[in-house]
Amino acid sequence: MAPSPESDLVERLLQGELRALSRLITHTEEGRGDVLATMERLWSHRAGARVLGVTGPPGAGKSTVVDKVIARHRAAGRRVAVLAVDPSSPFTGGAILGDRIRMQGHAADPGVFIRSLGTRGHHGGLTRTTREAAILCAAAGFDRIIVETVGVGQTELEVVGVADQVLVLLVPEAGDVIQTMKAGLLEGADVFAVNKCDRPGADKLAASLQAMLEDRAEIASELLPAVPIFRVSAQHGEGLDGLLEELDRRDVEAVPPGRALPPIAVAARLLGEEVARTAELEARNELSPDGDHADLGRALEAGTANPYGAVRALLGADR
Amino acid sequence: MAPSPESDLVERLLQGELRALSRLITHTEEGRGDVLATMERLWSHRAGARVLGVTGPPGAGKSTVVDKVIARHRAAGRRVAVLAVDPSSPFTGGAILGDRIRMQGHAADPGVFIRSLGTRGHHGGLTRTTREAAILCAAAGFDRIIVETVGVGQTELEVVGVADQVLVLLVPEAGDVIQTMKAGLLEGADVFAVNKCDRPGADKLAASLQAMLEDRAEIASELLPAVPIFRVSAQHGEGLDGLLEELDRRDVEAVPPGRALPPIAVAARLLGEEVARTAELEARNELSPDGDHADLGRALEAGTANPYGAVRALLGADR
Repeated sequence: MAPSPESDLVERLLQGELRALSRLITHTEEGRGDVLATMERLWSHRAGARVLGVTGPPGAGKSTVVDKVIARHRAAGRRVAVLAVDPSSPFTGGAILGDRIRMQGHAADPGVFIRSLGTRGHHGGLTRTTREAAILCAAAGFDRIIVETVGVGQTELEVVGVADQVLVLLVPEAGDVIQTMKAGLLEGADVFAVNKCDRPGADKLAASLQAMLEDRAEIASELLPAVPIFRVSAQHGEGLDGLLEELDRRDVEAVPPGRALPPIAVAARLLGEEVARTAELEARNELSPDGDHADLGRALEAGTANPYGAVRALLGADR
Repeated sequence: MAPSPESDLVERLLQGELRALSRLITHTEEGRGDVLATMERLWSHRAGARVLGVTGPPGAGKSTVVDKVIARHRAAGRRVAVLAVDPSSPFTGGAILGDRIRMQGHAADPGVFIRSLGTRGHHGGLTRTTREAAILCAAAGFDRIIVETVGVGQTELEVVGVADQVLVLLVPEAGDVIQTMKAGLLEGADVFAVNKCDRPGADKLAASLQAMLEDRAEIASELLPAVPIFRVSAQHGEGLDGLLEELDRRDVEAVPPGRALPPIAVAARLLGEEVARTAELEARNELSPDGDHADLGRALEAGTANPYGAVRALLGADR
């Protein structure tokens, strides 16, 4: 049997060809090809790469810090992939292009791969796309993968499911952020850094983070790992060595790849996403003018049927 | 046949009983009871209520503005429900409790219902929960529903699927936000307000929003509706009347309820979510020690099978 175009791409990916990596990431975003089979084949590579999540509000200086992390890995001869997660791209794409361009100092370096990720509206969303892109980068021979997300809240939670460790970057102006989002922030973070630490409010922010972490440790029923707080100025290089060393130290510790869910839960979630994607496409076809349920589709459009009733009808009246 | 406890709750909801509303929202969050049947029955009420989404970064003054919107509706004799969307709650819940407390000036008023929403980790997430909670509020007789979300980016996109109109609230300090998130921001917004307009940078922010809207109008292939930009100080009441009047004016215009997707796409999406939820639960059971695929579950835990391979095995090798 001749190899499929997909398995040819996978062979080229395994030889480290970046064009094959790019194309397979696009396939993943679009849910094209047999993504499941590709991922089953490449899964074991994931354990060979460390994934660092970098998150925080806009303006926190994430790109500057990521830039320094890249430089440090390159100096040590490690290949680095950066996945910039862009939740706004279902609409128009490319919103964090600016950040990408800022990192272009590394663009000519073949040991650095930078790519922004979006969902194209299909089910499962960015967590899934990011998880699969990380597997692809690992299979292409990248030792370190950095997942950079813009935003506070929702997005962080998604990073947690993909990254081996998460750096949350804040700035003194982010006092309001931590007040409103503290629960999510604390659960998602392995390391905090207060960037732009020369600005007023940096001490206060670091102190209130510290107080929150202590509160949490007090009410937790299990022993929680310590979460260090660094004060840095990424632009002026201040305090940065300590932060980068800590991230390095954690990279070599024997943490299991992916920290969020046990393997059975991951498999069940993946199955749900896959089934949803298929079912949604099928339902659209069935409700279309040429479909088996074209009448129901017309009734929906006329407003004489409602979407919940349609779901029940499509699933069978006996459910 | 005796009515089920669920249909009894629905009867009480339709009579406007707030305890029944609360309990049915909890059922929706937890995916408990026959949510689909309840929603099919109550769907027609949705058209009787207007849903306003209010979104923006933490610290933008959303709660203060929502408070003024509530007061205005109450003065006109309208009943108002506020759904505060809290994406961090899968972990710990209650992160925006502070905002809720700030709105408690209305807590003793039976014409105002305030509730925070989270997902309890099940599939479909906050968009689904929020959509269904809005239907429940409408069925309980609330004329106006305000969906308040914290955050910039992902969350906004979700509001769009639920709300009839979306107010995006920004503050002068949010310059960085709009630079990085502008694509998502513009697509999601019907009305912009620059709050804390007495602070430096307010004019610049309003001007750059205006420029972005003009750029967008220029490259759009269809006629885009005008998006007004208000400069307000919610705390001092400045400019607020104009904003509230505009929101009112839009409320009475004949906009269709829910602005995101055509009915067939909504039904297909709902079906996907429902099928995913069921499939995920079933897969967990099948992979558990007592399940039909307990061997595969053990192999996953031992690392000798991988999650993508497990999905393929569960879906049947012939796929």
